[in-house]
Amino acid sequence: MRALRYHGPKDLRLELLPEPKCGPTQVKIQPAFVGICGTDLHEYHSQTFIPKHGEPHELSNETAPVTLGHELSGTIIEIGSEVPNSADLKVGDRVAVFPLLYCRTCLPCKDGYLNCCVKKGFIGLSGSGGLGDFLCVQPEAVFKLADNISLELGALVEPLAVAWHAVSESGIKAGQASLVFGTGPIGLAVIQCLRAMNAGEIIAVEIAARRQEFAKKFGATHVLDPKHTDVIKTARELTGGWGPPIAFDCAGVPASLESAIHAVSPRGVIMCVALWEKSIPFNPNDLVLYEKKYVGCLTYQLSDFGSVIDALRDGRLRPEPMITRKIPLNRVVEDGFDALINEKDKHIKIMVDLSAL
Amino acid sequence: MRALRYHGPKDLRLELLPEPKCGPTQVKIQPAFVGICGTDLHEYHSQTFIPKHGEPHELSNETAPVTLGHELSGTIIEIGSEVPNSADLKVGDRVAVFPLLYCRTCLPCKDGYLNCCVKKGFIGLSGSGGLGDFLCVQPEAVFKLADNISLELGALVEPLAVAWHAVSESGIKAGQASLVFGTGPIGLAVIQCLRAMNAGEIIAVEIAARRQEFAKKFGATHVLDPKHTDVIKTARELTGGWGPPIAFDCAGVPASLESAIHAVSPRGVIMCVALWEKSIPFNPNDLVLYEKKYVGCLTYQLSDFGSVIDALRDGRLRPEPMITRKIPLNRVVEDGFDALINEKDKHIKIMVDLSAL
Ligand SMILES: NC(=O)c1ccc[n+]([C@@H]2O[C@H](COP(=O)([O-])OP(=O)(O)OC[C@H]3O[C@@H](n4cnc5c(N)ncnc54)[C@H](O)[C@@H]3O)[C@@H](O)[C@H]2O)c1
Ligand SMILES: NC(=O)c1ccc[n+]([C@@H]2O[C@H](COP(=O)([O-])OP(=O)(O)OC[C@H]3O[C@@H](n4cnc5c(N)ncnc54)[C@H](O)[C@@H]3O)[C@@H](O)[C@H]2O)c1
Ligand SMILES: [Zn+2]
Ligand SMILES: [Zn+2]
Ligand SMILES: [Zn+2]
Ligand SMILES: [Zn+2]
Repeated sequence: MRALRYHGPKDLRLELLPEPKCGPTQVKIQPAFVGICGTDLHEYHSQTFIPKHGEPHELSNETAPVTLGHELSGTIIEIGSEVPNSADLKVGDRVAVFPLLYCRTCLPCKDGYLNCCVKKGFIGLSGSGGLGDFLCVQPEAVFKLADNISLELGALVEPLAVAWHAVSESGIKAGQASLVFGTGPIGLAVIQCLRAMNAGEIIAVEIAARRQEFAKKFGATHVLDPKHTDVIKTARELTGGWGPPIAFDCAGVPASLESAIHAVSPRGVIMCVALWEKSIPFNPNDLVLYEKKYVGCLTYQLSDFGSVIDALRDGRLRPEPMITRKIPLNRVVEDGFDALINEKDKHIKIMVDLSAL
Repeated sequence: MRALRYHGPKDLRLELLPEPKCGPTQVKIQPAFVGICGTDLHEYHSQTFIPKHGEPHELSNETAPVTLGHELSGTIIEIGSEVPNSADLKVGDRVAVFPLLYCRTCLPCKDGYLNCCVKKGFIGLSGSGGLGDFLCVQPEAVFKLADNISLELGALVEPLAVAWHAVSESGIKAGQASLVFGTGPIGLAVIQCLRAMNAGEIIAVEIAARRQEFAKKFGATHVLDPKHTDVIKTARELTGGWGPPIAFDCAGVPASLESAIHAVSPRGVIMCVALWEKSIPFNPNDLVLYEKKYVGCLTYQLSDFGSVIDALRDGRLRPEPMITRKIPLNRVVEDGFDALINEKDKHIKIMVDLSAL
């Protein structure tokens, strides 16, 4: 079978590998669509998550070279002999794949927070992923797609689940206003999940002109350009003087944090979805003086995958326009990674179509 | 009447003033005991909260000189003609005074978070306080002390309420372990409130030897010296490997925050009780990677005063040994402020006894 494998920074190889055997407790998937994201790009330039030679990941037992691809949909083509009937899976089922690897035994795993597993890993980074013709996973990792959900949309479940998790952990209630800093793929997904959960005013803050347009298109009720607008003042004016109770930081720069923390209402919450490279100057008094909360958000729980698929089925989420390009497996670097760098603002999600040649 | 008034940094004057008149909606108090705290000391050296000439506080309408004293107990000596019977107050009632000034109309006030009032102030800083022979306040600010609570203890209600608020906002449950960084008056009050709420292991972290002893005495189950102990490792060992779910930062230094954030369990909470002077380097990834929360805590709500008084009445709180010295009104600088600077570790709470000469 074909597989796009990561051998090291800037060293991706499209290779021919033996087809993996479906273990008795596994299901075998034929991947259909695989989204590319900032994490893939970051890994392409600097090896962070992919285990190095001699240091296999505790749960996957793999090291580089590994097959990339963690945002994927596909079709079940085989079911292991020991997979229980209760799994309710059959050959031909169209599924989204939950890509986390987790130990099931640590404290957060036992509480259902697989995202905080102390050994956590990712299909497509810590172990083989979706950018190949076949992939075997545990039955718990496959989520059936309703008939009206395309396989393209199935590959969007993962980034949407990041957003769904952040929005549901924020505790936002119907009608409540919020701020979303940064409207890349994740910020746009947050905006859509906020709408799906019937939140109120959604004030997006974005510096790139094209992404401001996307923000409007996906449901932001206001889009502010921090280069030309006083974000704190405007956010207050738009919310009766107090500021929204919740902000989502999907930009992850000192300016977005600084604005978010001052723009939220007294006792407001800043949900940190962004990942950070290094320390920044921070004054905890900005939290203390009005009892604000700064909360880390990481990936998703199993339930978030289910919630996203429900919302796709009944139309509360309509993320089709996030897919700005589809490319074949042999063009991932040229038409995928390079485009995400050189024409960043133009794209939201570039999808690898495994059936395209 | 006598009053110790703040005229400016290092300029406190014991003065003779006309006795204040009790307004029709007020009650008049004769202060009995007044605690001195770090805020008084800080203000003594650098004017921060006390309003300057020409810039009266919005709620008190006062400027310097103001009478100090925000941690106070006293006896009701007069009740205004329009104070409703429902207030259930009578001359002779012994009370603790809730020192916050608040507007009642802003968003947090309406939600009961008077501590986050956008106009908030303090009796004894923004307006006249307890270090004088008489003081008039609104009936809502007085909390009756049960018969078995001494007036000395009544003056400890305020710092205990800071701690009660932080502990109750943390959501800690009976039996859960916690970390307390810094065991000055506030950290020691947190330890006592944790015990009063039936929390589990209490791991105190303190650098000063005498204060380590105090921590043990007031109920810490373990006391760590960060100069000689690996706090993160030890906290994990003491809690089955995961670390406590909650830490209280009552030290407010980069080292306490750094240890707290790494020592708490995945999805753990760091309650920031300390106030900070300036920005510090901070990496939000320390929150994101295990979905931790960093939460600001500020003073108290009305209900916290009630809860502390209940716990004093039924003996769940026994803070008597916090009072390490009692001084008369004419010795506040020499025996109060100077002692808190020169013999800091030796003292917890120095009380001004208004009846002593
Ligand atoms: N927590 C998680 O589980 C998780 C999962 C996926 C991605 N992430 C992180 O989420 C963040 C967003 O991901 P993405 O793929 O959308 O990234 P992205 O880089 O495409 O989007 C970030 C956006 O922020 C905008 N921005 C930059 N400075 C700004 C400012 N001062 N104010 C407002 N906007 C500003 C940029 O123009 C860009 O559109 C990244 O940090 C990523 O690493 C986290
Ligand atoms: N949020 C509020 O409403 C509120 C109210 C009152 C006080 N405060 C703040 O709470 C904090 C504590 O008040 P306090 O009166 O107890 O102050 P304090 O200065 O008496 O106590 C701080 C303690 O921290 C210890 N410490 C210093 N470095 C340490 C370290 N690296 N590890 C562990 N311990 C360390 C000190 O030895 C000291 O005992 C202060 O910052 C104060 O301003 C906040
Ligand atoms: Zn991704
Ligand atoms: Zn685990
Ligand atoms: Zn005080
Ligand atoms: Zn108010």
